Amino acid sequence: MSYYAKPLARLIKELSRLPGIGNKSAQRLAFYILSLDKREVTDLASAILEAKENLKYCGICGNLTDQDPCILCEDKGRDEKIICVVESPKDVVAIEKTREYKGGYHVLHGAISPMDGIGPEDINIKALILRLQNSNVEEVILATNPNIEGEATAMYIAKLIKPSGIKVTRIAHGIPVGGDLDYSDEVTLVKALEGRRLL
Amino acid sequence: MSYYAKPLARLIKELSRLPGIGNKSAQRLAFYILSLDKREVTDLASAILEAKENLKYCGICGNLTDQDPCILCEDKGRDEKIICVVESPKDVVAIEKTREYKGGYHVLHGAISPMDGIGPEDINIKALILRLQNSNVEEVILATNPNIEGEATAMYIAKLIKPSGIKVTRIAHGIPVGGDLDYSDEVTLVKALEGRRLL
Repeated sequence: MSYYAKPLARLIKELSRLPGIGNKSAQRLAFYILSLDKREVTDLASAILEAKENLKYCGICGNLTDQDPCILCEDKGRDEKIICVVESPKDVVAIEKTREYKGGYHVLHGAISPMDGIGPEDINIKALILRLQNSNVEEVILATNPNIEGEATAMYIAKLIKPSGIKVTRIAHGIPVGGDLDYSDEVTLVKALEGRRLL
Repeated sequence: MSYYAKPLARLIKELSRLPGIGNKSAQRLAFYILSLDKREVTDLASAILEAKENLKYCGICGNLTDQDPCILCEDKGRDEKIICVVESPKDVVAIEKTREYKGGYHVLHGAISPMDGIGPEDINIKALILRLQNSNVEEVILATNPNIEGEATAMYIAKLIKPSGIKVTRIAHGIPVGGDLDYSDEVTLVKALEGRRLL
């Protein structure tokens, strides 16, 4: 038996489905939502619906966008000769926040993971290869995550692109800035040593 | 400048207004919501809207309900002679979960707090006093929170009710079950000693 009135029980159930939101947090969120003005509640609900309705994948880079092609692909100020390949739209945001990178992107929407039954054809690789043909791209930066799946995906894509003569690079692995050598795991330390540079 | 497409930026902004949800969590929730089926997203949005639309306060006890009077007030199986006074609908749920209490409730929707400008007339006290008149209530349990505001509210209500001859009780303060004497604060320990019972 539920201790809540039906609409409240339903709201708590829906909220507790969200990642990182347990039953107690869902209850807190639900009571907070009920304490809002009607207008604020409508804003929240419509933001959810409109995001789902209006966002699609960019036909060129695969990033989440409300216009096709996306702002980044449309931007003539960006360097067309370089493409950064990432696993998810979140990674695009992370790299954009550095304000250092001015090239294009390609979002894979996942990584190759045989354990989860995700093969090369399940992620956005084919579009990348097609995009590179007849283009003036000179470098592809592989910025997939530094885990097994990300590495495997990077290796796979590197192999596919290499015959075309386009330069393929991988982002550096090493000790994070501000990190502690002492607390770094062995694999990261090995990568940091391997990637050492002449000063 | 936002790094997100507009509908996504709006969704993240709306979600980050919720309590305990920072910018990073809001981003994670937003991407999760986008990954859901359209039907699931509609369910979430409509749960939010319908909860806000259909929930009101019970005319008798002040609890959140979708019907008036609420299920608890309508339930003839419950003891009408005893009323438990709590600060919020969440507290009703907490007490209901014990499955021990079978009386009625009265929800104050707050506590007296001069610091925050909340006086006795700002919370649901008047309705309680009116409810007690011409009723067969024999005991009022004050289950406001054991903090300054809750104590002040309990004292205030006790003073109002006492002349009527109705028994007024306060929930016990003490060491929580499974708690550690060693880690208890001094005030709780004093309350536990004061409230000691003959075995």
